[in-house]
Amino acid sequence: MPSSTRYPRQGENLDFSRVMFFTDAVFAIAMTLLVVEIGVPETIDGAADDPAALLEVFDDKAPLIFAFFVGCYVIGSYWAAQHRFSSWLAAVDRGFVALTVVYLSFVALLPFPTGVLGGFAENPLSFFAFAVNMGAVITMEAVLFSHARRRRLFREEWPEDVYRWELRSSLSPVLLFALSVPVAFVLPQLGIVMWFLAIPFGMFLNRYRPKGAERYLT
Amino acid sequence: MPSSTRYPRQGENLDFSRVMFFTDAVFAIAMTLLVVEIGVPETIDGAADDPAALLEVFDDKAPLIFAFFVGCYVIGSYWAAQHRFSSWLAAVDRGFVALTVVYLSFVALLPFPTGVLGGFAENPLSFFAFAVNMGAVITMEAVLFSHARRRRLFREEWPEDVYRWELRSSLSPVLLFALSVPVAFVLPQLGIVMWFLAIPFGMFLNRYRPKGAERYLT
Amino acid sequence: MPSSTRYPRQGENLDFSRVMFFTDAVFAIAMTLLVVEIGVPETIDGAADDPAALLEVFDDKAPLIFAFFVGCYVIGSYWAAQHRFSSWLAAVDRGFVALTVVYLSFVALLPFPTGVLGGFAENPLSFFAFAVNMGAVITMEAVLFSHARRRRLFREEWPEDVYRWELRSSLSPVLLFALSVPVAFVLPQLGIVMWFLAIPFGMFLNRYRPKGAERYLT
Amino acid sequence: MPSSTRYPRQGENLDFSRVMFFTDAVFAIAMTLLVVEIGVPETIDGAADDPAALLEVFDDKAPLIFAFFVGCYVIGSYWAAQHRFSSWLAAVDRGFVALTVVYLSFVALLPFPTGVLGGFAENPLSFFAFAVNMGAVITMEAVLFSHARRRRLFREEWPEDVYRWELRSSLSPVLLFALSVPVAFVLPQLGIVMWFLAIPFGMFLNRYRPKGAERYLT
Repeated sequence: MPSSTRYPRQGENLDFSRVMFFTDAVFAIAMTLLVVEIGVPETIDGAADDPAALLEVFDDKAPLIFAFFVGCYVIGSYWAAQHRFSSWLAAVDRGFVALTVVYLSFVALLPFPTGVLGGFAENPLSFFAFAVNMGAVITMEAVLFSHARRRRLFREEWPEDVYRWELRSSLSPVLLFALSVPVAFVLPQLGIVMWFLAIPFGMFLNRYRPKGAERYLT
Repeated sequence: MPSSTRYPRQGENLDFSRVMFFTDAVFAIAMTLLVVEIGVPETIDGAADDPAALLEVFDDKAPLIFAFFVGCYVIGSYWAAQHRFSSWLAAVDRGFVALTVVYLSFVALLPFPTGVLGGFAENPLSFFAFAVNMGAVITMEAVLFSHARRRRLFREEWPEDVYRWELRSSLSPVLLFALSVPVAFVLPQLGIVMWFLAIPFGMFLNRYRPKGAERYLT
Repeated sequence: MPSSTRYPRQGENLDFSRVMFFTDAVFAIAMTLLVVEIGVPETIDGAADDPAALLEVFDDKAPLIFAFFVGCYVIGSYWAAQHRFSSWLAAVDRGFVALTVVYLSFVALLPFPTGVLGGFAENPLSFFAFAVNMGAVITMEAVLFSHARRRRLFREEWPEDVYRWELRSSLSPVLLFALSVPVAFVLPQLGIVMWFLAIPFGMFLNRYRPKGAERYLT
Repeated sequence: MPSSTRYPRQGENLDFSRVMFFTDAVFAIAMTLLVVEIGVPETIDGAADDPAALLEVFDDKAPLIFAFFVGCYVIGSYWAAQHRFSSWLAAVDRGFVALTVVYLSFVALLPFPTGVLGGFAENPLSFFAFAVNMGAVITMEAVLFSHARRRRLFREEWPEDVYRWELRSSLSPVLLFALSVPVAFVLPQLGIVMWFLAIPFGMFLNRYRPKGAERYLT
């Protein structure tokens, strides 16, 4: 271990990249930790080598596996949204770093309501908790977006109407989440369907985006 | 925290790299989480300092440790396949990002059937569940491959026969997984052997690859 | 798998970057693992679909959820501090790598006192344990800083007074943590408030920083 | 989501870097997962706000916390060794990727013997299991080193004696691990001390390294 070995920094983009990789890591871990909530039983009712007895376990676990996939696609789609948003950035600042920590705290929490949703799928309060957590993530996304706009962190200046449209469009799922809660009190399954309506709803909103917006909203 | 500190982005390849690093992170976590399924007992039958009593614990855990290594090599070989595949890519697009999330959801699920396999090694249904999950991962690999081909994301144009050969070759383990399920009903251990036959089988297939394919399939 | 496929290294900054990404990964995992300590109950007192029964669970979990957020912001703010500090570095050496491992061992431990804090929020010893762990992280930060100074790893030479001020300023939260322990014996909640006083306290200290320091302490 | 958005790859070093980052991620997760083995008790013997009752819990957890730090420094020092080794590499090939997966499977397993060591610290078999796992990691390190030598993956040609010296020196801790097992049967604590003797032993070996070796072994 000669004292002279030095590993020099080269290039300047590491500080920017690290904020993105830290974000990626939290998303990846939150998504992969979901599997822990499914849980593997230590024993089954019946002979250990009886397929019928193990099938019953899979049957019992079905709502947890379903919640695992719901959680994966929710976390995955937020990651994809963050990836798209940050492809527009030319820089980050210290305020962006601080807000990212708050944003990621809500992402890191998601496995908890996902587990509750899997364990108590017929309980409307499960939906409420999950929807509140998703709403917090999306709100922080909008806060990061506004911060980036205010501090001129984007690669290019956007017209005011493009900025406003994108902000509203990214917040629009909050409306669907809010509506899903009373729906879930009547029919829980329909509540989940409403969350995924966010995707076609976003495509629908896209029709009304300002002229020339496609130049910025790549 | 002076408001003027900015960390600029430099270079353009970060958006591409992030998709790869997110993929790497999910694979790495899925592989490392497998150890949690082994579990450490809190007490043992006999004196805490008796080697014979602890040996019995290791004996009980043997199928779980075996399943850990099976899971590690399955996940590791899928990661190596993704690494090889993406070395051919010149770019990714938003559709690739979305399909990657679906692909990774099946990777993230693998610790669950691995745990079941460890806990119920003599139950053919364990094999079925594991084989179905592996089949889903491989199918999504093929979907990503086809998407990249259709959207011209490869570094260079491939001849049609090279493309078809690589697609079939990457899907060929699905056949082995499907065959392993009835085999496992007779002899579970032989089922696992069949999964790892995918490696020599791939080498065998390699002999029949189109002329000139080695230029592309590096 | 032709034997000739080689993936060459390009550029020289990978060895430096890896130390930062390893650091980022440990922080990200520690932050995301906190959610495991909350735990999802398998059954509830009352009907599985009764919102009131599930509400009671959330009520029981409130201190654990609160501890999750405390842990997230503590770990997140240490990560932000490490990100800021390392943006000043021109290189790392092998001693820096070794000290980073010690530093990260204390970061990786944080989910344990966070879980204890969540489970025993009225117990002053919980505060003591958490404060000791935070103190160890901050002390190692200062050790890394001094090492970087001694081995001339910074991008530019700093005046002696700027260096001393930054070192004292980064260690100042240790004083607040030490004071929080007797306070927590009287009123636990006030103990946590004192930890977060580190932020305004840092801003206050900033007023007394040496002239010209803003050139270095970006 | 316009179909035309493409995120291009730039530069060529991503495929090399990914192998390193995947390695870093597995090490970071294995190190951080160790904390899960400590475990937070749900209840304590005595009043929840009684410091003396909670102190007893910390006392019970002491061997687990000690094992956590042993595990952290073992995993951390292997990561530092891999970081040093790979700073010498100019390229990796597909065989290196495959061997890395085997290497990382033993790294990912380390939290299991670490947990056993924490739970059964007076049991010599715990030491044996941990030493076997460490031996497997170090052996795979040597296999990777030999592979890199054979396939000419190093940045520069090394003289034969430098290569042999480094290989022996990196394998030397295996000897200490082997000796620690009978020692642990007599006095477990001394067994752990022997593992950490690897560091001064390495420094001692350094005196006998071939002339001119410092040019390569940076």
